[in-house]
Amino acid sequence: MKRLTLKFGGTSVGSLEKIQKVAGIIKKKHQEDKEIIVVVSAMSGVTNDLTKKANLISKSYDPKEQDVLLSAGEQISSSLLSAALIELGVKARSWMGWQIPILTDKTHTSSRVLKIKTDEVLNFISNGGVAVIAGFQGVSIENRITTLGRGGSDLSAVVIAKFFETDSCEIYTDVEGVFTTDPSIHAKAKKIEKISYEEMLEMSSLGAKIMQPVAVQASMINEIPVNVSSTFSDDEGTKITSESEINYKNEVTGIAYSKNDAKVTLVGVVDKPGVAADIFEPLGKNNINIDMVIQNISSEGKKTDITFTIKRTDLSKAIKIVEDSSKHLNYQKIIHDNKVAKVSIIGAGMIANPGVTYRMFRSLADKKINILAISTSEIKISVLVHEDRTQEAIKALHKTFGLD
Amino acid sequence: MKRLTLKFGGTSVGSLEKIQKVAGIIKKKHQEDKEIIVVVSAMSGVTNDLTKKANLISKSYDPKEQDVLLSAGEQISSSLLSAALIELGVKARSWMGWQIPILTDKTHTSSRVLKIKTDEVLNFISNGGVAVIAGFQGVSIENRITTLGRGGSDLSAVVIAKFFETDSCEIYTDVEGVFTTDPSIHAKAKKIEKISYEEMLEMSSLGAKIMQPVAVQASMINEIPVNVSSTFSDDEGTKITSESEINYKNEVTGIAYSKNDAKVTLVGVVDKPGVAADIFEPLGKNNINIDMVIQNISSEGKKTDITFTIKRTDLSKAIKIVEDSSKHLNYQKIIHDNKVAKVSIIGAGMIANPGVTYRMFRSLADKKINILAISTSEIKISVLVHEDRTQEAIKALHKTFGLD
Repeated sequence: MKRLTLKFGGTSVGSLEKIQKVAGIIKKKHQEDKEIIVVVSAMSGVTNDLTKKANLISKSYDPKEQDVLLSAGEQISSSLLSAALIELGVKARSWMGWQIPILTDKTHTSSRVLKIKTDEVLNFISNGGVAVIAGFQGVSIENRITTLGRGGSDLSAVVIAKFFETDSCEIYTDVEGVFTTDPSIHAKAKKIEKISYEEMLEMSSLGAKIMQPVAVQASMINEIPVNVSSTFSDDEGTKITSESEINYKNEVTGIAYSKNDAKVTLVGVVDKPGVAADIFEPLGKNNINIDMVIQNISSEGKKTDITFTIKRTDLSKAIKIVEDSSKHLNYQKIIHDNKVAKVSIIGAGMIANPGVTYRMFRSLADKKINILAISTSEIKISVLVHEDRTQEAIKALHKTFGLD
Repeated sequence: MKRLTLKFGGTSVGSLEKIQKVAGIIKKKHQEDKEIIVVVSAMSGVTNDLTKKANLISKSYDPKEQDVLLSAGEQISSSLLSAALIELGVKARSWMGWQIPILTDKTHTSSRVLKIKTDEVLNFISNGGVAVIAGFQGVSIENRITTLGRGGSDLSAVVIAKFFETDSCEIYTDVEGVFTTDPSIHAKAKKIEKISYEEMLEMSSLGAKIMQPVAVQASMINEIPVNVSSTFSDDEGTKITSESEINYKNEVTGIAYSKNDAKVTLVGVVDKPGVAADIFEPLGKNNINIDMVIQNISSEGKKTDITFTIKRTDLSKAIKIVEDSSKHLNYQKIIHDNKVAKVSIIGAGMIANPGVTYRMFRSLADKKINILAISTSEIKISVLVHEDRTQEAIKALHKTFGLD
């Protein structure tokens, strides 16, 4: 008998009617003689509402108490979904993280799962029951509620698929799968049938919002094929699997973008060994991640400009840190720009096709889109452009790489 | 060092501002060098909202899942209150029922507490921490969430006061204490300084809404003095304690009323031994509680009328049961009335004053208020009157027994 993990996101259980619809989907799968473990998110809006309350109580809300607070959302939805299944005549019950238990480390608000005890749930599903597990939450060795951080329910689903050795992990969400690019930005975006873990990891890291990178990474490490599809459509979704399962036709699988970046340039830096380290050390020590870096070669070998990108939310903090060490760093001036966007092409197929980089730059140049910075990995190329050129860049690249 | 149980009801934590106010009250008590255990209800409205959701999902919502659902309310409020305390510089943390654990029986939705493990909480409060315990909830031996039923947080507070051997149990609510009668019905109602467990039990059973009878009963059985006062006032509240602590000046301590009753009369019942049993047996077997009973003596010893009162919500069910067994019961007709109210005078002082009954009836007769049924115990007399005479009856009795 096949055993499935089915995960339903917040929008899929966003109202009582939707919960009833989801119960119907689960019942149908269950009648196909399958063992079913359901992982459920909080109803959409609930987590945000609780987070808002927390912020009003304290700007530095105790992380342990935050996990108590936020995990209540999945407690509510897992009860409602279980009851909706029972109402349809399906044997069902809910499990909280601490009841299974899903044992995690003590890193409150972003815990990692260490171990899941499986016997009680397995006994229940092998006797015809549907197990409904509250996503996002676990319990620490100190018997305190923990949560897995943003997108934690996807991560719950993947680790549950792993520990319960289910044959598949199906993520039900409000979109029909992973698209070649954001359909709200470009109407010609097409659903991708299969995508590799590595590509999906890049896509989600670079701005596609289907699954959180941490959940994709867990599926990659544990080689758990994930299917992403819509709760509200019968269409096949996108399969996230290993590269060997995929027959690549295109160099580029998808195009992602993000508008969360800011660019900082130090003008007139004295060009001597160790200068980059001097700039980035204090930033790193303050938990500011540097993404792209460009260092112009200085013509006289004396002065240079150093440009780097960081998260937009880190900008003012970063400026302050750099200014505070201005004497030590020895630069002329600092300029910054937060009206930038990062556009990335992703594809395992580009490894074997060295022309991709050139074609990307040509495509943008033809549209007179200025490239402000570049970073690459084996399966992706990211460029920084002015924010208001984002859509144009995406459309051009989508066409150039045959995705239209 | 004194150890206190402080319980805050739903209206006391009904908004974030109120939660912050409550945190301030707790901080002040804590600074008086006391060990503090707080019991907290769900924010007002939350439990009702969850109950509404449950009803929309299923008319027969699984009791185990209902406990999962409703206990989320106290999970949220206990986290918010703990964080508000931490924000004020007070060491604090929340405990859910399963974390302590508060072990209950398996009667989901109305469980009884069997045992509370005290070491972790005691260790925390003896090291300067304030323990915030989610009210209303416990955990069964099967590791499932249970709840204590309506008014369960009061019951939580009393049993926590018992198991943690606290010096007092203080119930903070939205009224200033227990009044001689409902102040919204009669402006001359006065706060009672001290009331006995037995009187309070009658008061709450007969309609006063300060504390649920089950919580009063627990305080009586365990001889735990309870103080009821307002979160929003510095006035002394009402002390619920043993009779021996009270110096009775009045025969009557308070007047309660309820409008939850209905009256049923079987006219022309053949008066033979066993007839009352024949009537009440099928009702009892269908979980319908009979409150008052009046049987008129029939003049010829052949036919009689039997009147009884039941909960208003049971009326249509009761009528059907009686009609279904009409041939067997042998009566002429059945009449019923749900526009009735029960008005009760309560006072331990009436045991020593046999004139109370007479004075009650005279007082109502003077106002031409018809008495439809009567029931008595050692410390209370209840009469059934037409619903629209309720306020008038209360005012008359309040004056007659010197409570104005």
